Amino acid sequence: MTFEERARALVAQMTLPEKMSQLRYDAPAIPRLNVPAYNWWNECLHGAARAGTATVFPQAIAMAAAFNAPLLEEVATAISDEVRAKYNRYKTFGETEIYQGLTCWSPNINIFRDPRWGRGHETYGEDPFLTGRLGAAFVRGLQGDDPKYRKVDATLKHFCAHSGPESIRHGFDAVVSEEDLQSTYLPAFRYCIETSDPSAVMGAYNSLNGEPCCGSVKVIEELLRDELGFTGYVVSDCGAVRDIDQYHHKTASPAESAALAVNSGCDLNCGSAYTWLQAAYEQGLVSEEAITRSAERLFAARFRLGMFDDDCPYDALGIDVVCSPAHRALNREIARQGIVLLKNDGLLPLKGGERIAVIGPNADEMSVLLGNYNGIPDQYTTLLRGIQEASAGRVLYAKGCHHYDPKVPERAQFPLREAILAARDSDVVILCMGLTPQMEGEEGDAYNGCNGGDKFDLELPVPQKELFEAVLAEGKPVIFVNVSGSAINLCRQDETCAAVVQCFYPGAEGGGALADILFGKANPSGRLPVTFYRSADDLPDFADYSMKGRTYRFFEGKPLYPFGHGLSYTDFIEEQLDGNRVRVANAGSMDGWHTVLRFAPHLAGFQKVFLKAGESAVLSFEP
Amino acid sequence: MTFEERARALVAQMTLPEKMSQLRYDAPAIPRLNVPAYNWWNECLHGAARAGTATVFPQAIAMAAAFNAPLLEEVATAISDEVRAKYNRYKTFGETEIYQGLTCWSPNINIFRDPRWGRGHETYGEDPFLTGRLGAAFVRGLQGDDPKYRKVDATLKHFCAHSGPESIRHGFDAVVSEEDLQSTYLPAFRYCIETSDPSAVMGAYNSLNGEPCCGSVKVIEELLRDELGFTGYVVSDCGAVRDIDQYHHKTASPAESAALAVNSGCDLNCGSAYTWLQAAYEQGLVSEEAITRSAERLFAARFRLGMFDDDCPYDALGIDVVCSPAHRALNREIARQGIVLLKNDGLLPLKGGERIAVIGPNADEMSVLLGNYNGIPDQYTTLLRGIQEASAGRVLYAKGCHHYDPKVPERAQFPLREAILAARDSDVVILCMGLTPQMEGEEGDAYNGCNGGDKFDLELPVPQKELFEAVLAEGKPVIFVNVSGSAINLCRQDETCAAVVQCFYPGAEGGGALADILFGKANPSGRLPVTFYRSADDLPDFADYSMKGRTYRFFEGKPLYPFGHGLSYTDFIEEQLDGNRVRVANAGSMDGWHTVLRFAPHLAGFQKVFLKAGESAVLSFEP
Repeated sequence: MTFEERARALVAQMTLPEKMSQLRYDAPAIPRLNVPAYNWWNECLHGAARAGTATVFPQAIAMAAAFNAPLLEEVATAISDEVRAKYNRYKTFGETEIYQGLTCWSPNINIFRDPRWGRGHETYGEDPFLTGRLGAAFVRGLQGDDPKYRKVDATLKHFCAHSGPESIRHGFDAVVSEEDLQSTYLPAFRYCIETSDPSAVMGAYNSLNGEPCCGSVKVIEELLRDELGFTGYVVSDCGAVRDIDQYHHKTASPAESAALAVNSGCDLNCGSAYTWLQAAYEQGLVSEEAITRSAERLFAARFRLGMFDDDCPYDALGIDVVCSPAHRALNREIARQGIVLLKNDGLLPLKGGERIAVIGPNADEMSVLLGNYNGIPDQYTTLLRGIQEASAGRVLYAKGCHHYDPKVPERAQFPLREAILAARDSDVVILCMGLTPQMEGEEGDAYNGCNGGDKFDLELPVPQKELFEAVLAEGKPVIFVNVSGSAINLCRQDETCAAVVQCFYPGAEGGGALADILFGKANPSGRLPVTFYRSADDLPDFADYSMKGRTYRFFEGKPLYPFGHGLSYTDFIEEQLDGNRVRVANAGSMDGWHTVLRFAPHLAGFQKVFLKAGESAVLSFEP
Repeated sequence: MTFEERARALVAQMTLPEKMSQLRYDAPAIPRLNVPAYNWWNECLHGAARAGTATVFPQAIAMAAAFNAPLLEEVATAISDEVRAKYNRYKTFGETEIYQGLTCWSPNINIFRDPRWGRGHETYGEDPFLTGRLGAAFVRGLQGDDPKYRKVDATLKHFCAHSGPESIRHGFDAVVSEEDLQSTYLPAFRYCIETSDPSAVMGAYNSLNGEPCCGSVKVIEELLRDELGFTGYVVSDCGAVRDIDQYHHKTASPAESAALAVNSGCDLNCGSAYTWLQAAYEQGLVSEEAITRSAERLFAARFRLGMFDDDCPYDALGIDVVCSPAHRALNREIARQGIVLLKNDGLLPLKGGERIAVIGPNADEMSVLLGNYNGIPDQYTTLLRGIQEASAGRVLYAKGCHHYDPKVPERAQFPLREAILAARDSDVVILCMGLTPQMEGEEGDAYNGCNGGDKFDLELPVPQKELFEAVLAEGKPVIFVNVSGSAINLCRQDETCAAVVQCFYPGAEGGGALADILFGKANPSGRLPVTFYRSADDLPDFADYSMKGRTYRFFEGKPLYPFGHGLSYTDFIEEQLDGNRVRVANAGSMDGWHTVLRFAPHLAGFQKVFLKAGESAVLSFEP
């Protein structure tokens, strides 16, 4: 029997209330049918998340900056190994709890439309082609290559046109033209669905042109299933079904919302709305057939994950795979490849014997390694520690200021003067500044609640600007390391610093990876997956979903650092051989990775290759 | 001219308002007399504190557990080198700011009268003899041994009879019998004053038998100066002078409070009360002579610190002494000596190849290394990291629970189940639990504001108790590592665990030091400087300052671990040779430190000696 047939046979034995109960993310057990309770909610955006100790890879945006789809697929394989290993252990308790299952609500393949969006660092950046390729690689890595079973279910999110503002997301209507929909908001979903067979898609909180994404036949049945050809199950974002009556005001009651969602093809509910399905049924709002259809889809998925079989090869994955040395090494490798060298006047790589001042609130900050939707690392290397471990000279450390608040009582405890003196007493300064995942993030999750998790602008916080100027005034060469999940206005840094490095949120091995770059043990190869603008003033209104004037594809101004920008310590020379082939040569003296980008005029191909000094290679692209 | 003569000559040139201004902790400059602004407030309880990066030695209570006065003096020498080096750099700005000066408001030699006191971890424990000897060693180390200049001013605090409750400290009246005053609350102050010549004493917030400690002729002039022979300057605790009218209701206005304090001999005011001195003078409440006397004392101290000379040898201390490798090594040594092995059934030391589960909220928690009144380390080793670095086997880590809150949203992110599984998958479990400096601390400083920073009882928080039982049920041998600044009820741990270790707050090198002990690279030699009771129910009311029923000296019940308790991996045999001499022999197979304690019946002598296996030594004690 196929998984679908087994699902149909199992669901056929259920009562209607039992079927309804299985459409909730916290599906209860049905002991008489040997169905254990199952909590569908799990996360693995850049590592097994929220379930304790795990390898914490760089945040998604940092992995995107590596521009290396095969490497990302390796990472996703490591992640799904850890998710599965944890599940295998957790299920010995009989059932699994939240964040312990096999159905991961990752990746986030929304387009990073505007740098102010707090959740932008969960994405692969602003380009639909890049996002699609990386998303598909991630899905393949998660789902595994067993011919019969899925290792882990991937869930593409959030469908569709979801990218802030966070503070109004529950009732927001994204007004999107057909052109923008087809060329910007849909392509990554389309590509992933066509090539990587994702098990699931998550509906967005917002409406799309007036249609609530979790309660719309147009969005789910017509756009997602019919037009894009999606055949898996759809899950609502958490609480999104209740939003239909509470914030979108499309329905008058939770029962109506639940019915509308099920009737639209939203199979699984994260939240509590589907507890009203019985009421909806009694009011004649939803049919048993609709509920059965969703239940069958969900049980087909559970069967495909091997949950009811004993011959699933992934059951053999043991706990030692979690945080294994191999995963740690892989983590450091993708962290290295995701660091982007934005400017270098020749100071980098450092020789190693310099007297170094490491200054700034992000230097020894563990949280910036982790991003959001993260696990807990069992080992981590802050930027400071990485530099200390790599440096042969004296390293002076000064925190210098609070991340954003000039008035916190602790301010005197890391005086500005200490930073000034550290610079004065050193040969070179490494300034580690930027944001934290608490300053840009999801609604209700980030501290800056006044703006729902989004950024007001692209500026560094005032205390950091003051620290920057005070240190700069000492006249020492400055390497500016920016840690953020989004574009920051680095004009002043570009103008004044010897080198500028973008780290994003680089994962638990971030400090070691940064040190590898700074001291030349690795050649920088990251590229920007987003445009670094000079100011938010150059951008349209944040809530305007038209792509006009946004991202490298439609921005008409002059960015500080364009999409795809990223320097190396060596010289790579590209030569177009014919329409589909490019010869790339490492003409410098240092081995390194290089990504060839093809634009037509938007990104239409990218391949990353490792070339020793003097080596060359010919890369073939799809026509 | 002596420093006192120079002070008199300088103060004689000041106007009355200028003199008044110099009695404030934030003394302004008097440019016409070449007197720079000076902020008297600095802290160095266990390292240069609140002025940025510094070597963070173990919290005071942990250093007390080392029972090693010469080692503590070495540590204090390292601390004052760092304080002075920072001052030397900061003063290049013309004047120094808060936490950048040479006048440190350390050590805290109050008696740790009751384990519920939040600030108890700032002290050297519950015994007056131990506190006096360690306090004097610390003062000597801070103040240096130059025949002319002071390196740093030490300040004994808080005079007198100050040990909670935090929540009512500003108006609290400690009712103390003459017997308790003389045998418990005064001896450490008396000994330090008689033997180590501390520059300063800080008055307490509370009243002593109805006399506000910062505004009492009886307390300051009669008790401190006349009876104890103190000749230095007295500083108020911060805001304590205003407390005299606001909370003690001994005066009717801030002007009256300021006058009373100055007239009582409180020379320096932390807070704002002395801005009312002009008003007090105009009301005839305070004389110019009284103000002059205090100003002269303060300037004598500044002269003695070399602030107005250019031949002070301590001016040569440079910034490289801060966080030097030598200080790091010293830090690890005292951290090792301050760890107390409370129970060992033979499991310790570990062999090194075990499969280890490290579990608990204090395992990878940086803040517990630091205690309070701390600097920022430039490197630190958490307990987990120390164990990982020392272990040859696999180390599984599970945080297991939040420190105290069972309801925080992140709870699911480190599931209890993970801890259970880690135990199940390992040979031995190291449980790292206890409190944090945010759970027991100073009023307004600790999170648990509901109790002003004090503990309600001696219990581990409920989530940790649940975690403990769940892990214990797995049946693996458990090493219980308790991290706290105070006594905890460890009866259940003593009953069920293979080993119990008390770490206190062990400083930036704490994880390495713990690993040295656990894996037998160092022999445990710490002793408890406080009694570990079985329950707070065995104790008198917290606010009762009578010593009856408190500390090993007067407690009549059976403690779990008595004052002075601490095991070794080797056997030390003590033999009383005559009244004053003890032969001590290392009769075991491992080298180690051993402290001989002499009780008569209370602690009357202690000496620590390092003996190789098979070695012996004869120690002479004062009669």
